[in-house]
Amino acid sequence: MNDLFIKSSSHSYHIYIRENIRFNVNELLAKTYSSILIITDENVAPLYLEDVKESLPSERVYTTIIPATERSKGIQTYYQVHTEAIQYGLDRESLIIALGGGVVGDLAGFVAATYMRGIDYIQMPTTILAHDSSVGGKVAINHELGKNLIGNFYPPVAVVYDVQVLETVSEKEVRSGYAELIKEALIADESFFKSIMDTSLTSLTNEQLTTHIRQGIAIKATIVEQDEREANTRKYLNLGHTLGHAIESELGYGSITHGEAVAIGMLFAMRVSEQKYFIKLPDQELLEWLQNNNYPLQLGSINTNNLLNRMKSDKKAVSGKLQMVLLKDVGVPVIEEVSEDDLNLYLSSFTDELLNS
Amino acid sequence: MNDLFIKSSSHSYHIYIRENIRFNVNELLAKTYSSILIITDENVAPLYLEDVKESLPSERVYTTIIPATERSKGIQTYYQVHTEAIQYGLDRESLIIALGGGVVGDLAGFVAATYMRGIDYIQMPTTILAHDSSVGGKVAINHELGKNLIGNFYPPVAVVYDVQVLETVSEKEVRSGYAELIKEALIADESFFKSIMDTSLTSLTNEQLTTHIRQGIAIKATIVEQDEREANTRKYLNLGHTLGHAIESELGYGSITHGEAVAIGMLFAMRVSEQKYFIKLPDQELLEWLQNNNYPLQLGSINTNNLLNRMKSDKKAVSGKLQMVLLKDVGVPVIEEVSEDDLNLYLSSFTDELLNS
Ligand SMILES: NC(=O)c1ccc[n+]([C@@H]2O[C@H](COP(=O)([O-])OP(=O)(O)OC[C@H]3O[C@@H](n4cnc5c(N)ncnc54)[C@H](O)[C@@H]3O)[C@@H](O)[C@H]2O)c1
Ligand SMILES: NC(=O)c1ccc[n+]([C@@H]2O[C@H](COP(=O)([O-])OP(=O)(O)OC[C@H]3O[C@@H](n4cnc5c(N)ncnc54)[C@H](O)[C@@H]3O)[C@@H](O)[C@H]2O)c1
Ligand SMILES: [Zn+2]
Ligand SMILES: [Zn+2]
Repeated sequence: MNDLFIKSSSHSYHIYIRENIRFNVNELLAKTYSSILIITDENVAPLYLEDVKESLPSERVYTTIIPATERSKGIQTYYQVHTEAIQYGLDRESLIIALGGGVVGDLAGFVAATYMRGIDYIQMPTTILAHDSSVGGKVAINHELGKNLIGNFYPPVAVVYDVQVLETVSEKEVRSGYAELIKEALIADESFFKSIMDTSLTSLTNEQLTTHIRQGIAIKATIVEQDEREANTRKYLNLGHTLGHAIESELGYGSITHGEAVAIGMLFAMRVSEQKYFIKLPDQELLEWLQNNNYPLQLGSINTNNLLNRMKSDKKAVSGKLQMVLLKDVGVPVIEEVSEDDLNLYLSSFTDELLNS
Repeated sequence: MNDLFIKSSSHSYHIYIRENIRFNVNELLAKTYSSILIITDENVAPLYLEDVKESLPSERVYTTIIPATERSKGIQTYYQVHTEAIQYGLDRESLIIALGGGVVGDLAGFVAATYMRGIDYIQMPTTILAHDSSVGGKVAINHELGKNLIGNFYPPVAVVYDVQVLETVSEKEVRSGYAELIKEALIADESFFKSIMDTSLTSLTNEQLTTHIRQGIAIKATIVEQDEREANTRKYLNLGHTLGHAIESELGYGSITHGEAVAIGMLFAMRVSEQKYFIKLPDQELLEWLQNNNYPLQLGSINTNNLLNRMKSDKKAVSGKLQMVLLKDVGVPVIEEVSEDDLNLYLSSFTDELLNS
């Protein structure tokens, strides 16, 4: 099996995608660490923490279990994990392992990035969505005024992805992860997109899943190698995220998953693209696939004005002007500045037709 | 006048050292920023904030004034400055200016490093000590369990040093800054060391000061270019800091300045070096110079055991073993592992003879 490999500006790292690899983490460590802190959440801990612990040297391996909620990406938990790291005596030659979904990965990665000005860490993603968050070095916590506003670009020393643990991921988290796979397909690879459209999430096989994850990561890897700090092409990975983030925060985090919100955002981006460029995209096909796979699309009476305001204050907005990722075709993403008035029009018809229907 | 220039791993930046340069900051900006946030403290603000503000474009320049205390390098102020940055609408094309001493520089630098995963910032040091902290990209805040434990390596886009503002720096802050200059001299340049020993801080001229700062920064610049992330030679810059940090935290920050504590630490490092390597160093000369220049050396009854424990939990300790920077000669620093027992002996005789005398 070919492992993927990423060149970051500071170092290169492997992405190991294998079944049951969680039992062999020790063999993948490039050096001997003075101590190891595994950070995980309360859902993942009872399922997989012992497996990983047993695979490591018995001495000086510590664990921290955080609540399984987006709120764990707040300044309090961040500081608390630092406190534990200090109390366990972690030093500059220590390692952090992030065992969990994107919440654990983003938080643990940012702790690693800032503990004593940065120590090594390994991403061990346990959700499908985390195929995206674990690769590329974006780490962050949330500010109460906005998501992911405090963070770093800080790549891990390895990504260790045991696809076997994905069997216990809930249906809605499968939907969430697949939305990000669709995103990668839409910006880079039409046949990958078709392959997902031919897949039913309710009868997903391990083989299909592994193939899709591998394809998604390969696309992401290529992009972040070109543009680690998101100066240009990495922005394409935000397809669907402008509206997606607005929906997430408008509904309150947790009521809809990140990917489910992004799925709606992608539909919207496709509609805008069609109207702006006078083209035809497979948005109807995507809509039907989302419906068949039980994505929440009717959101009740969501306020268009609130969404608009949230989109304007998005991290990606520069000097007040709003940038959106659009598609000129499947596999041909572009960054476009959209005026507030236009956005208002597009959004009103979109919410009337779909979300509030 | 030759400007200094530093190559960091991510970019190169100028260090402008000139009188009255604070009136011309705008001319030094390499690009147009969407907005600017000046972070300064309550002592510096009434003296120099308007000068800097006036030198900038009138629109979208904001200011934040933090309390002039080491406590401003805490998680609360850090989060609060992020809040203000968000509320002012800073985006990825914005600039932060750190106008102040090392406290402002470390805090503002870490905010810049983590705001939306990193935006540009300029160091405008206003103390002598900050010649050290403003160069090299080390930024950090304190954890209640230890100093500078949360931070990044994140170089500024420029250092703009107006030596004229140093005229208002208090005597004890002059002493503090000169200790770091002596440190640079001791690890790299004997004639620089002699030149400082020939200088009286009470009759310091602007010319002497500028020359010394320039020499100190040149030494620091050479070292951080070789070893940005402190894997080896950059550690030499910690001469005097193992005991220095322990004294600072044992006495409580604020009762003695950072540099004053480091001065004592350097004397100690020289004594240890003499005994370990059977050599003669100019520690007597340094001691007399420190006395003549009113450095606090008798610290009352300081507890040797407490100091020892604090030294062991220092960030520089790796796997429990304590590393100290020692000198084989002036200009010839080495990193040495010192056992706890040896340290105990050296420290007891040192405190008996000097600190508690
Ligand atoms: N850094 C990036 O580039 C990036 C990219 C996309 C998303 N993200 C972030 O990722 C986060 C979302 O990640 P997520 O969707 O993985 O959420 P998550 O980490 O909250 O995981 C979702 C839920 O699944 C549970 N879970 C995880 N693994 C499991 C397993 N194997 N079996 C059973 N349950 C399991 C978790 O406990 C949690 O309840 C967001 O905070 C988002 O901002 C970051
Ligand atoms: N990042 C690094 O590499 C590095 C290196 C050394 C020290 N440091 C940090 O630097 C900090 C100490 O810096 P500092 O000594 O500059 O302390 P500081 O920033 O607290 O300044 C000392 C005092 O001088 C005042 N002041 C500053 N400029 C003045 C001026 N021009 N006129 C009158 N008053 C002025 C300040 O308000 C403050 O009261 C510590 O937190 C230390 O950890 C960092
Ligand atoms: Zn996403
Ligand atoms: Zn210092």
